Parts: sequence; structure tokens; C-alpha cells
Amino acid sequence: MIILDGKKTSSDIKDEITQEVLQLKKDGRKTPHLAAIIVGNDGASRTYVGAKVKACNRVGFHSTLVELSSDTSEKELLSKIEELNNNNEIDGFIVQLPLPKHIDEQKILMAVDPNKDVDGFHPTNVGKMALNLPTFISATPYGILELLDRYHVETSGKHVVVIGRSHIVGSPMSILLSQKRKVGNATVTITHSRTQNLTEITLKADIIIAALGIPEFLTASMVKDNVTIIDVGITRVEDSSKKNGYRLLGDVAFDEVSKKASFITPVPGGVGPMTIAMLLKNTLLASKMNN
Amino acid sequence: MIILDGKKTSSDIKDEITQEVLQLKKDGRKTPHLAAIIVGNDGASRTYVGAKVKACNRVGFHSTLVELSSDTSEKELLSKIEELNNNNEIDGFIVQLPLPKHIDEQKILMAVDPNKDVDGFHPTNVGKMALNLPTFISATPYGILELLDRYHVETSGKHVVVIGRSHIVGSPMSILLSQKRKVGNATVTITHSRTQNLTEITLKADIIIAALGIPEFLTASMVKDNVTIIDVGITRVEDSSKKNGYRLLGDVAFDEVSKKASFITPVPGGVGPMTIAMLLKNTLLASKMNN
Repeated sequence: MIILDGKKTSSDIKDEITQEVLQLKKDGRKTPHLAAIIVGNDGASRTYVGAKVKACNRVGFHSTLVELSSDTSEKELLSKIEELNNNNEIDGFIVQLPLPKHIDEQKILMAVDPNKDVDGFHPTNVGKMALNLPTFISATPYGILELLDRYHVETSGKHVVVIGRSHIVGSPMSILLSQKRKVGNATVTITHSRTQNLTEITLKADIIIAALGIPEFLTASMVKDNVTIIDVGITRVEDSSKKNGYRLLGDVAFDEVSKKASFITPVPGGVGPMTIAMLLKNTLLASKMNN
Repeated sequence: MIILDGKKTSSDIKDEITQEVLQLKKDGRKTPHLAAIIVGNDGASRTYVGAKVKACNRVGFHSTLVELSSDTSEKELLSKIEELNNNNEIDGFIVQLPLPKHIDEQKILMAVDPNKDVDGFHPTNVGKMALNLPTFISATPYGILELLDRYHVETSGKHVVVIGRSHIVGSPMSILLSQKRKVGNATVTITHSRTQNLTEITLKADIIIAALGIPEFLTASMVKDNVTIIDVGITRVEDSSKKNGYRLLGDVAFDEVSKKASFITPVPGGVGPMTIAMLLKNTLLASKMNN
């Protein structure tokens, strides 16, 4: 059994990007610049955004954090987005989600210039992804493709079962892995809350992407020997034995499933750390494209 | 066994649209207007476009046919598209495919204003479809959803197997049928040329969408009893016994598969006739949206 080590892989990717940025600077080209907009004081969101800014510093990108108060109006946010769209210094930017309830999230995502949409959430970029055209693939699916690639997990002709149909993970994963691409050419089954006989389906899977958000949902009896497991779930569960009072669980019962698996991502330290690395990769791409 | 009669259903839809157009006129609202651009003299393309214009006449739409010679440059075509984008009289328009080889098809499709893209081929509309947002769903997938709906074929919780991963049919069908929508909520497996053990997979299917373009590929031994079959294939095969020298075959061996099926589309007269009806529905939607 081989652990798909997202922490190490993510660190490798950041090192590669650091080298590329040094080269860009040496060549007198523009230093990539990522901006992030955060609205309000949600603790988890601030932590995520903070980690993104820190990652920019590590690889030598410029970064800008735009902090707006929780009572910012939709109109004000749209005007800030327009400002970033028109600012040639900024290569790419993200709007940290979730947004306060009085703001229409979809409207905001649609306002981001697709050429600066390094989160890959704009419909135009989702459409390009679905059409297998060059674009920004959103961080979680992109990170999964990259992990499978770097560990040489064969996907061509394999049967992938995706559990969960979210727009962020399940749906794009099912689209990407079925396409003609390096990590792709798989037979893909997408399953969700309405699926009947799920176990019958997962038992056939060569690769399982678990992205439903129910801790330890996937158990050993649901998988065959030598399966590859990508665990996208991450749920805080109370645990009084831990100093901080909780532990993090994935959608997979790791201890038992890992005994049958060929490859498996841990939680934490699997898919999670990959996302920021892929955001940086998209920003680097945006910078090269636009300059 | 029930035949999913696309000819009749398409005719019903056209009657419904005719009624809506009469009502729009009565209300003093704008008459929907579809334009079609055709480049060159391909016989099949001219037949298709001709059928679309005829269908517009039948339901009371205005129509405009823009005929360009086969040596039209990409730039000239782009400028014609720009003209239609800016013409408020035109509610929606299509560019008949395929285009001559010196023209970049993707570039052309990207130039169409997404709000007038009644073919649903622009990445923005493909992305909206993938995100389950309101948009123009392209005619073939939309027609299949409509057929399943009007014949009350249950899809929720059913296992759909899609054969073929084209951007026009296989890929969007697999996305749409897995979504939370009236005709949707299915467990969907997308298969293609790289799929191994296809028969093992199709034997589990409650619904099969065959869209690979190989005549009579799907045989009775590949399906279970009471399956629903949607046959998207249409291939001309030489047949000297026919007056015109050929007959049309689908991707399904109709005679033998129909004996096991609950529902099945014939070829011709199944999915094919639905596409023009759905193009008209999209044009009606565009006209209501933009006026």
C-alpha cells in the first residue's frame, strides 16, 4: 500500500514554482501576482486565505489581500471585482467562499474576468473544462489529477467510481477522468444520494473518489483488493482526547480500507494540501498568459 | 415495448410552440426570429439548414438564412457573427457545422453571443449546463431529456450507461442525467473506446444512451430485460434494394434489442426529429429572455 502524500507532493510543486518564478525574474518578466478578496470574519475562511497568502510568499509571488467587512453590499463587492479585473498588475484573483447571505454568490463568480479566474469557477471556464479546452481547472479536481499523475496511477481503461456530485469536486472529476487526457480515459460512474446498490458499484471500482462529506462512509467491505482511494472529505469530529478538542476525518474508514488499497490518500495530508499548490499553478499560468 | 416516437413528439412540441407564438403576437410581443449561417455547399448541411428554416415557418417564427461561399475567410465569418450579435431583430442564431477546414470552428463558436447561442455550444453555456444553471441546452441532449420526460421514463435512482463521450451528446448526457433535475438523479456511467468489459457494464443498465456512431453496435446479448434504449446513432449504409441506394442504421440492432426493451427509440424517427423541435424551443426562450 502506497500513501498518496499530498503534503510532500504539494511541497514539491511549490519548489518547482519557486524555480520558475526565479527564472521569470531573471528573464525580466513580470512576477505573478495573486489577489484574494475576503468578505467578513469567518474564522475558517480567514485561515484558508491566510494560507494562500503565505503560499504566495513562499514561491515568490506578489499577493494582495482585500479585506471587506461583512456588511459590504453586493454592489460594492462587484465594483471591487471590476477594479481587479481592470488592474493589469493582478494576474489572477479569487473570492473566498462562502459569502454573506445577502450576496448572490453566482452573480459574484460570474463577474470575475474568466482570464483571471484562477479558481476556475466561472461558467466559461467550467465549460472549457467540460469541452477539454485549455483553461483553469479548479483546485481540488486539478490536485487530484496531479496526485494520480505523479504517483503513476493508471487511469486509462480503469473503472472510476465518484461518490458525490458537487460542482466543486464530484461533477468535474467525473467529466475530467472520462476525457482523452493524460490522466483520463477512464470509464467513470458518478454516484450520489439517489444511487441504489452503491456497494455493488463501488465493489467494481479500480479507483474511488469519495467526495460526499460523511465521515468514514466508505468501509472495507465496499471496496475490492488493490483499489486506489482518493478521499476528498474532511470533517471535524469532537475528540476530547485531542488538545484542540477535535480530529479530522475523511469520507473513508482509513484504517480498514488502507489494508485493501494499492494507493490511498490520508486525511489530513492528502487532497487538502494539493489545492493551494494548484491555485499557485493556475496563477502562474494566468501570469504567463496575460503578460 | 413502447416506441419513443420522436416524430410525433417533435410534432406535438411544434404545435405547442405555434400556440405560444400566436399568443405572443396577440399580446403585441416580438415574433421570435432565428438566423442560420451556412458556409459552403455541403449537401447534408444544406438539407439540415433547410429543415430548420422550414420548421421556423411552420411555428410562425421569422427566419433568416445567411449563405456564404465556401471561400469565405474566418475574418469575414467573424464579422457576420458580430453583425448578428448586434442585430436586435435576431433573437438567436446558429452556425451550421462542419465549417470549411480553413476556419477554426472553436473560435467561431466562441464568437457567438452566449445569449443568442441557441445551439448551446458556447463554453459559457456548456458551463452553465454543467453547473445546472438556466441556459440553452444543446438540441440532441435536450431532445433526449424531453423524450424521456414525455414518455414518463423514470430516471431517478436508475443506472444509465452512456456509450460515447462526444461533446455533442455523450458528455452532456452523462452530466445532465446525474444532476438534480426532473429528468435526472440517475447513477451514470460514461463509457467509450477505452472502456474494458463494456458488456458487463451495459448488462447492468436500466437506460442505455448509444452515441458512438457504429451501426448496430449494441446487440440483444448486451442488454437486460426491460431496458430503455436511446439510439443517437445514424449512419447511411449502402442498400441496393432501396430506391435511393442506402438505408439509415442506428447504433442499436433494433430488431433484436427491441424485443427485450421497455422503451426504445427507432432510427430514423427517434432522437433525430427531436433536435429541430428543441432548437425552436431554445429560440423561443431566447426571444422571451431578450425582449
